Amino acid sequence: MNVLPPECELLRIFIGESDRHQGKPLYEAIVAEAKKSGVAGATVLRGLMGFGAHSRMHTARILRLSEDLPIVIEIVDSAENIQALLPKFDEMIVEGLVTLEKVRVIAYRCQQNA
Amino acid sequence: MNVLPPECELLRIFIGESDRHQGKPLYEAIVAEAKKSGVAGATVLRGLMGFGAHSRMHTARILRLSEDLPIVIEIVDSAENIQALLPKFDEMIVEGLVTLEKVRVIAYRCQQNA
Amino acid sequence: MNVLPPECELLRIFIGESDRHQGKPLYEAIVAEAKKSGVAGATVLRGLMGFGAHSRMHTARILRLSEDLPIVIEIVDSAENIQALLPKFDEMIVEGLVTLEKVRVIAYRCQQNA
Repeated sequence: MNVLPPECELLRIFIGESDRHQGKPLYEAIVAEAKKSGVAGATVLRGLMGFGAHSRMHTARILRLSEDLPIVIEIVDSAENIQALLPKFDEMIVEGLVTLEKVRVIAYRCQQNA
Repeated sequence: MNVLPPECELLRIFIGESDRHQGKPLYEAIVAEAKKSGVAGATVLRGLMGFGAHSRMHTARILRLSEDLPIVIEIVDSAENIQALLPKFDEMIVEGLVTLEKVRVIAYRCQQNA
Repeated sequence: MNVLPPECELLRIFIGESDRHQGKPLYEAIVAEAKKSGVAGATVLRGLMGFGAHSRMHTARILRLSEDLPIVIEIVDSAENIQALLPKFDEMIVEGLVTLEKVRVIAYRCQQNA
């Protein structure tokens, strides 16, 4: 079982839902890679609308109809573990935004981590 | 009406959608507790997929089909008000991740707060 | 094409899904304004439930049935570009919470930005 130190980092990856990596959704590939590398966890959020590197928005069209909805992937772990992941993600992400923030871990409880 | 100072904290709680507290969804119990304690607000986001303390992911199964989707609860308030909440949440959360980040409040407007 | 410096800010706007601006959803108006101003991107997330300045919650009613679900809009850009946006958003947001956080940009890739 993974134990998180009090000072961690929050990695956030903004990509598009339609982005692909080796034939599967890029967000699934990123989560699988995160899992394989042993990070404590990953969460994928899907946005309602958006624009940017992660999701093209045509001004003449209703944003809601976009088939490329924004995806935000969040990973919290130690600075070392996050740094170890970055080169892998760097190869996978063709378009998108990757940010880091400092977070304090108040509690991390995990009974059985598959 | 609650007034937020410029320097606040963002509390983020990562749990699973299927987590329960006294027979109801844990995320509902946490939001009700936050409301009762008088914090300025709480927002619950549901993830599309994920793994970690908050949500078990079996590598042999399609992640999307998980019945334990990740939930992120966000609460912004003063450091004092957040600290006052932590012991209550500590009792309620059996598995999950709780993080704190510093945020600056640029605007907080509330006409009628139920 | 927009280039992001390594030190950026994450602007987060918490409003309600039913908030309006000049007849259209406020979150759409905010994203359109962000796009017009040339910021690198914006992402809109919809919450499952919540309460606060952005979304009224009546304790006597099931939270899930709320017709005013919380919306979180996230914009990452340089401090200068974010500051330039704030007065515009200030006029548009009648009820809500606006926060700023420092973020480090690790990667920003954009092939064709419409």
